Amino acid sequence: MTTKRVKGTIKKAYQDKEPVLLAVDCIIFGFDIEGLKLLIFKRHYQPLAGEWSLLGSFVERDENIKDTAHRVLKEVTGFNKIFVEQLHTFGSVARDSGDRVVSIAYWSLIKLNEQNTHLNVEGYEAKWVDFKKVPKLVLDHNEMVNVALSRLRERARIRPIGFELLPDKFTLPQLFNLYQAIYQTTLDDRNFRRKILRSGLLLELGEKDKSTSKRGAQLYKFDYDRYEQLTKEGYLFEI
Amino acid sequence: MTTKRVKGTIKKAYQDKEPVLLAVDCIIFGFDIEGLKLLIFKRHYQPLAGEWSLLGSFVERDENIKDTAHRVLKEVTGFNKIFVEQLHTFGSVARDSGDRVVSIAYWSLIKLNEQNTHLNVEGYEAKWVDFKKVPKLVLDHNEMVNVALSRLRERARIRPIGFELLPDKFTLPQLFNLYQAIYQTTLDDRNFRRKILRSGLLLELGEKDKSTSKRGAQLYKFDYDRYEQLTKEGYLFEI
Repeated sequence: MTTKRVKGTIKKAYQDKEPVLLAVDCIIFGFDIEGLKLLIFKRHYQPLAGEWSLLGSFVERDENIKDTAHRVLKEVTGFNKIFVEQLHTFGSVARDSGDRVVSIAYWSLIKLNEQNTHLNVEGYEAKWVDFKKVPKLVLDHNEMVNVALSRLRERARIRPIGFELLPDKFTLPQLFNLYQAIYQTTLDDRNFRRKILRSGLLLELGEKDKSTSKRGAQLYKFDYDRYEQLTKEGYLFEI
Repeated sequence: MTTKRVKGTIKKAYQDKEPVLLAVDCIIFGFDIEGLKLLIFKRHYQPLAGEWSLLGSFVERDENIKDTAHRVLKEVTGFNKIFVEQLHTFGSVARDSGDRVVSIAYWSLIKLNEQNTHLNVEGYEAKWVDFKKVPKLVLDHNEMVNVALSRLRERARIRPIGFELLPDKFTLPQLFNLYQAIYQTTLDDRNFRRKILRSGLLLELGEKDKSTSKRGAQLYKFDYDRYEQLTKEGYLFEI
């Protein structure tokens, strides 16, 4: 391997520079009726084998970093289309005792349903954990999770990102619960309802969800087209 | 060099992984009475020697990535204390023809004054360019600049980041010009004045700046303490 690195892969330019290992780690948020969850895995290689970890992978020399993130997420979910965005790069010298590894963190949002609640990731023991009970993770992964949570909160406040976590058709109580889960706090139900309806971004579908009560709750869709248009006009979504 | 890499620096773990080169590039915004500017440099090494570029450096194996950014900025400005924040990591395979180099972009804001308008960066030809006239830069550096501008605009809108670019004491016309420069558009003067004064975040100093008119313009300071407190209470700054 070392021979390969020396002979084959280092090109002419920048010959006096020393390379480092590069990894991608994914903070995968899930949401269902029980609340906000985080997907964690039992690490199966040294150092720290057997401990809880985010899912990640080293970046291959011939792989775009974005593709590394998509590869990791595809391995977990089976889907190609999933919300994923670069979060932050973590690069302190001592963050990984195994070697100098700089890690680019990506965050992702998944609606939990029957298809993806029970995941089957080859070679990994995977688990959705309640966001309030995330255990000690390896390396700086808990810090990554905290940064991702801040980003999620910032986004949910000024962009309607939370809708990624709901079914296409949702009720106001579902949306309200999502926001309470993201902020891990008790919000004022009336105030929330007033603000979100006033935004003009919810389309009332004229259908009801009767799964939780006889009377039923109105179903809504998020109006992405209107959101795009308003954003262009300088509108600031705020909850 | 290759011998050193093989013998000395690769530790036991992750032995089958291939390292890549890691760089930091800095998007340095400046602001003065003429408007918003960008600091660019003539690249003095191959490939693309002699072309305009952002200022950057390779990350050393024993250097935190944040420290690389500070080292680069210190080289330019001589200052240790300067606003700098990680922006985004650029990592497509083909972005640098010299080798596989992943670059972590940082953005920075500098108030231009007599001390730093004429920079003396050893070995570099440095130039502040009008933001509307940024030339073709090497590699994906123009894309980095665009991402940084979006971030600056987002920040200036929801956080009072723009104040980093003004003197401690400033007039409302100065603040107004800054926002016009950031958004590269004509804003409504009255509306802006009303919004910013209503925010309660400006401290009127009871002093006047008489450099531009006999009557003079009121000088203000930004109230960072009040901003911190309001932010904790859930206040959203918005211009």
